[in-house]
Amino acid sequence: MTASAPQIDPPFLGEPYLLTPGPLTTSYEVKQAMLRDWGSWDDDFRAMTRDMRSRLLALLGEGAGEFDCVPMQGSGSFAVEAMLASFVPRDGKALVLANGAYGLRSAQTLQYLGRAHQVLDKGDYLPPRGDEVAAILACDPSITHVVAIHCETSSGILNPVEEISEAVYAAGRKLLIDSMSAFGAIELKPSQIRYEAMVSSANKCIEGVPGFGFVIARKAELEAAKGNSHSLSLDVHAQWAHMEKTGQWRFTPPTHVVAAFLEALKAHEAEGGVEGRGARYTRNRDVMVAGMRELGFETLLQNRWLSPIIVTFFCPADANFVFGRFYELMKEKGFIIYPGKLTVVDSFRVGCIGQMDEHVMRQVVTAAKETLAEMGVASAAPPAAALEERAKLAA
Amino acid sequence: MTASAPQIDPPFLGEPYLLTPGPLTTSYEVKQAMLRDWGSWDDDFRAMTRDMRSRLLALLGEGAGEFDCVPMQGSGSFAVEAMLASFVPRDGKALVLANGAYGLRSAQTLQYLGRAHQVLDKGDYLPPRGDEVAAILACDPSITHVVAIHCETSSGILNPVEEISEAVYAAGRKLLIDSMSAFGAIELKPSQIRYEAMVSSANKCIEGVPGFGFVIARKAELEAAKGNSHSLSLDVHAQWAHMEKTGQWRFTPPTHVVAAFLEALKAHEAEGGVEGRGARYTRNRDVMVAGMRELGFETLLQNRWLSPIIVTFFCPADANFVFGRFYELMKEKGFIIYPGKLTVVDSFRVGCIGQMDEHVMRQVVTAAKETLAEMGVASAAPPAAALEERAKLAA
Ligand SMILES: Cc1ncc(COP(=O)(O)O)c(C=O)c1O
Ligand SMILES: Cc1ncc(COP(=O)(O)O)c(C=O)c1O
Repeated sequence: MTASAPQIDPPFLGEPYLLTPGPLTTSYEVKQAMLRDWGSWDDDFRAMTRDMRSRLLALLGEGAGEFDCVPMQGSGSFAVEAMLASFVPRDGKALVLANGAYGLRSAQTLQYLGRAHQVLDKGDYLPPRGDEVAAILACDPSITHVVAIHCETSSGILNPVEEISEAVYAAGRKLLIDSMSAFGAIELKPSQIRYEAMVSSANKCIEGVPGFGFVIARKAELEAAKGNSHSLSLDVHAQWAHMEKTGQWRFTPPTHVVAAFLEALKAHEAEGGVEGRGARYTRNRDVMVAGMRELGFETLLQNRWLSPIIVTFFCPADANFVFGRFYELMKEKGFIIYPGKLTVVDSFRVGCIGQMDEHVMRQVVTAAKETLAEMGVASAAPPAAALEERAKLAA
Repeated sequence: MTASAPQIDPPFLGEPYLLTPGPLTTSYEVKQAMLRDWGSWDDDFRAMTRDMRSRLLALLGEGAGEFDCVPMQGSGSFAVEAMLASFVPRDGKALVLANGAYGLRSAQTLQYLGRAHQVLDKGDYLPPRGDEVAAILACDPSITHVVAIHCETSSGILNPVEEISEAVYAAGRKLLIDSMSAFGAIELKPSQIRYEAMVSSANKCIEGVPGFGFVIARKAELEAAKGNSHSLSLDVHAQWAHMEKTGQWRFTPPTHVVAAFLEALKAHEAEGGVEGRGARYTRNRDVMVAGMRELGFETLLQNRWLSPIIVTFFCPADANFVFGRFYELMKEKGFIIYPGKLTVVDSFRVGCIGQMDEHVMRQVVTAAKETLAEMGVASAAPPAAALEERAKLAA
């Protein structure tokens, strides 16, 4: 197995490929690692936790020594909430850069927490830019933290976190990143982009199964987080301190999911780490987008903003196109796609992550072609309103 | 397979039995159910969630119609926190009945939540009694809710929840139960014992793998819980409302863990439900306790308070007995036991739950006997201080 030719397992027993942003299609080896039970208190499992934490940290590359990794039970949103509550102090104020559902969810979380915050809402998919951030920070010195979404999975846009980070630190503030759907496939090197903490989860680009998330944060921030959390379960400082002291999770860990994740981390390394994984996903996206465009589909985003994680397509204008039926027919052919999240025009999404390569992506395009024919959709072209919407991005 | 003779799978590839209160030894079938991936948005997975919720509700027996089941990502403690935050209103006050680590954890959770509360702390294992509860409630009319631990897993005591419930409702207050380690093996029928909500998790008496918990609550309480939660992730009302509307979990569910749990629920039914499961665990306990007593070990609790979940034994007084070595030698023989949690005297615990039957429990006793011999422990009798401690229970 080399970095350029990773081994891709076909799904088991003809189960469909998940072209979704996680849970996603995992390898058989990853799932097989769940075929035994571990005592969470036992040394064997502590060693697994230790190995997992250090492997995750290693993915940061240069500068990782200043960080530590704190796994957190629950879904990714739990880890985001844990990060926000632990690192935005009670007298702090956060600026949330939103351009989709996950940015808005961070804002909603801060609302629950009763933490002061302001939202820069760019709508469904327009990117928050460094100069906008700089302008807001210049106007409001009470803002202590900026929250950015790395890949906003609801449109698939890859947000410009580098220029955002520069603006944040030029103004002397701190950056927290939701890298849920990007981490492990897109570099987030502390030597290249500054931030205090980031969050991701087991079932995204590392290709594990869902059941926990993790916060990677500067040790100095972890120390300082003591007493900040609103929640016992979601207290990152307490989880970290306990893990450092005992090697154990504070509360029962999802042992099987952890075992699967460790297997996934090994495969990630064998594929060439973040670079190798990112290269496969990029190839997946390029092949799939080219094929879909050939069928007449149009992407929401211009190439520059397309992430290698998930891509949004406009639904065809053709009256014969009904998303529910498109979904079912694609599923029958072995591909589970994902509904869109745009508020203005109809759309759907196709994920590029998980145990799939460009051969699979070609099959996806073929399946889409056949499905359009079955539905009697003559043209996959979107309605004029969609293209007008998209023109905003160029403006 | 009949209720009296459930099929017990031996652990896979010689892995040790987990004589722990969860994660525990699960069947191979349960783990095998994790060998595929599901899209969390897909109909197939929604049907699994629906099936799981209705199977869990059915375990309540008569009166279940007034309740609903809300699964919650994270470990059991997350579900406890979710229950407390959602059902004790911000202007409410809780009385926590504590006799071990889990009661104290509920109190600590309320502290994080900033909810008024009072603790009746009975120490390491003395049971909170109905008349004590009645007396406290009579003195403090501001108490709105009582929090009880069904089986306090830290000592293994089965708390008298029936008499507690009677005292609570006689005083016009509401009861919330942490039935983490008991639910599924010990009846908690609303027709026999009144309560507003209870909580348990996937990796206890239903014998699934860890990764989520669930709250079972009266629908009227679920309705009324809107706006109470301190946390987006742990908001029981929001999770419930979303699930009722869409059939989906609000945030990514641990799909594989859910699939395993559904398999576990089917096996639970095949074994004769709560009654059948409880009977096997009771037999496990009886055989194991009798054998250990024959070796000279003494239980912390008198028979009346012994749960069929987990049993605490005093460490022998013999100077050759070192718990760490006992643990390792037992592990070499295929049994992972659990350290004790008593503050006054040394102890260890042996769980009776998971895929084990009385034959396995006999092997546990044999292994303990051999281990004592290897360690050169002549007598398993506890120190005098332990027996004095225990005498308190009789007083
Ligand atoms: C960017 C981002 N943030 C947060 C989440 C929430 O994660 P979860 O669904 O595991 O709670 C997701 C999920 O896809 C995501 O893509
Ligand atoms: C009675 C009780 N409550 C709460 C918990 C906490 O559950 P978890 O470790 O899954 O967070 C446990 C765990 O054993 C328990 O036995």
